[in-house]
Amino acid sequence: MKKISDYSALMEKNVRDLTFPGEELSSLYSPVSYALASGGKRLRPSLLLMAADCFGGKTEEAFAPAAGIEVFHNFTLLHDDVMDNSDTRRGRQSVYAKWGTNTAILSGDTMLTIATQLISQVSDEKLREVLDTFNAMALKVYEGQRLDMDFEEMEDVSLDQYIRMIKDKTGALLGAACKIGAIIGGADAKDAEKMYEYGLMLGVAFQIQDDWLDVFGDSTTFGKPIGGDINNNKKSYLLLKSFETGGPDAVALKEAMSLAAGDTKVKIVTRIYEKMNISAICRQEISSYSAKALAALKSTSLSDDDKEAFRMVVEKLTGRKK
Amino acid sequence: MKKISDYSALMEKNVRDLTFPGEELSSLYSPVSYALASGGKRLRPSLLLMAADCFGGKTEEAFAPAAGIEVFHNFTLLHDDVMDNSDTRRGRQSVYAKWGTNTAILSGDTMLTIATQLISQVSDEKLREVLDTFNAMALKVYEGQRLDMDFEEMEDVSLDQYIRMIKDKTGALLGAACKIGAIIGGADAKDAEKMYEYGLMLGVAFQIQDDWLDVFGDSTTFGKPIGGDINNNKKSYLLLKSFETGGPDAVALKEAMSLAAGDTKVKIVTRIYEKMNISAICRQEISSYSAKALAALKSTSLSDDDKEAFRMVVEKLTGRKK
Repeated sequence: MKKISDYSALMEKNVRDLTFPGEELSSLYSPVSYALASGGKRLRPSLLLMAADCFGGKTEEAFAPAAGIEVFHNFTLLHDDVMDNSDTRRGRQSVYAKWGTNTAILSGDTMLTIATQLISQVSDEKLREVLDTFNAMALKVYEGQRLDMDFEEMEDVSLDQYIRMIKDKTGALLGAACKIGAIIGGADAKDAEKMYEYGLMLGVAFQIQDDWLDVFGDSTTFGKPIGGDINNNKKSYLLLKSFETGGPDAVALKEAMSLAAGDTKVKIVTRIYEKMNISAICRQEISSYSAKALAALKSTSLSDDDKEAFRMVVEKLTGRKK
Repeated sequence: MKKISDYSALMEKNVRDLTFPGEELSSLYSPVSYALASGGKRLRPSLLLMAADCFGGKTEEAFAPAAGIEVFHNFTLLHDDVMDNSDTRRGRQSVYAKWGTNTAILSGDTMLTIATQLISQVSDEKLREVLDTFNAMALKVYEGQRLDMDFEEMEDVSLDQYIRMIKDKTGALLGAACKIGAIIGGADAKDAEKMYEYGLMLGVAFQIQDDWLDVFGDSTTFGKPIGGDINNNKKSYLLLKSFETGGPDAVALKEAMSLAAGDTKVKIVTRIYEKMNISAICRQEISSYSAKALAALKSTSLSDDDKEAFRMVVEKLTGRKK
């Protein structure tokens, strides 16, 4: 049976094989190579490859567009790190911290154009559909990032607004990766849409899980310090859901969130979350979005074996792990 | 006869007619509209329209790609203004000054994707060529901006390096505008390349003229304060050419450039430029690149009337004006 980890391994090599102009312009392209060499799960391009393969395409023909999806994802990280003043990324210095704002902006722009070039390496008859899907996704991602930034300044953010934000910021890219893979593989329009839906819902489930891990995860496997969202007063799923639930715990939570950042704050907030049983609520929400992803998957014309390969991705990404 | 100013007027309306998502995401799209409403000459999209028209295309069919070229140009300005800490742009606050770094980055990214969408609004059989030309141009522009930034940190920059930089940063966009217009109009590959060459050389002539105007222009028509390059120690054509010429004046110039920014510095440096007769040297260089643009134009299959329309653009952009 097909396994996402096999595609990840292929993708890792594929991304590392990308070459850029040499010495003279190393100030522009070295940060690009640095960003792409920082690893990560290569989840998005692997989904694209697996979708192309499952719908009957040749995996190699999807290499360039898959690399394009990965380059796009890393472009957003370069710019996000400037916007968030993030010094670290995947356990290393971010491009922003290592080379500064101007390089992160300009090498990021370069990556967006390179991503578009790679995405366009498909047959003529598929070019427009792939390109349109890619560009529409890119706008969604910017809109999601914008909403995320706007939320920081807002007093009240509803859960609906939050879900819309993560659909745009996280879900759209997973959706587009699956859809573009499907198109390249030869899927019909209905199947391609269903695969978008699968990726979109997977993305939402994945993001809620990520929010949960930020509080209850294990820092060694999570890759980021635990409690970061709490200390940054981030309007996470956990926080917004707790506020919406209301009651004395929500009042206590609001008070705790106004404490100065630090271990004490993280401990107090985590204890309130535990008292409110937020883990079970998160689990339920993750299951609900996972189910939506699986329903979309089920309605495609993929073989049972291939459906199982995509089902395993949902399980892998959203299974409870600390 | 066709006149570039007629296309500029068409373009002005065309750009102002662009619409973006509404209220909810105004934090993302208002800066886009603001940037596009700031006017400017609409030179690049007008060249695209005129090329499409001259090579036999319908002007209206080139509207979207022409708008794409203008949106791309303004995207680069948004990001350049962050990188240069520029508070003003065309006599108004820059997006960077008005909304800050994060908005300039994210709304700029949005403009690059919108530009790609607009550029792609061509017939299927022309899509790949237009898109490839656009993406290759975009990389050139980033490379030029990177070189420009690198030059600030370099002790010695040769005139050759400078010319390469302005070819990339300024020439490539004018070249691509002309070439994409030609492709849309139905030009063959040879004519399309010649039109690229025309725009590229026009861009170099235009930039040297711009460097000259920065010292010897009239601030009311130039749109920027005179002497900005001198006060910013910018490695302009005038400065690098003077250094290359050498002799006691070049030594005096080096000394004058180390003065603190201010009117006195501008006056002293300008006087040395005058003594070195730099205006005549600039004029000669501008004429040389204009001649290259005209030679490329001459070798196209355009009618004499249409060639005249493009020749007038060269004259208009590089004619001595204060």
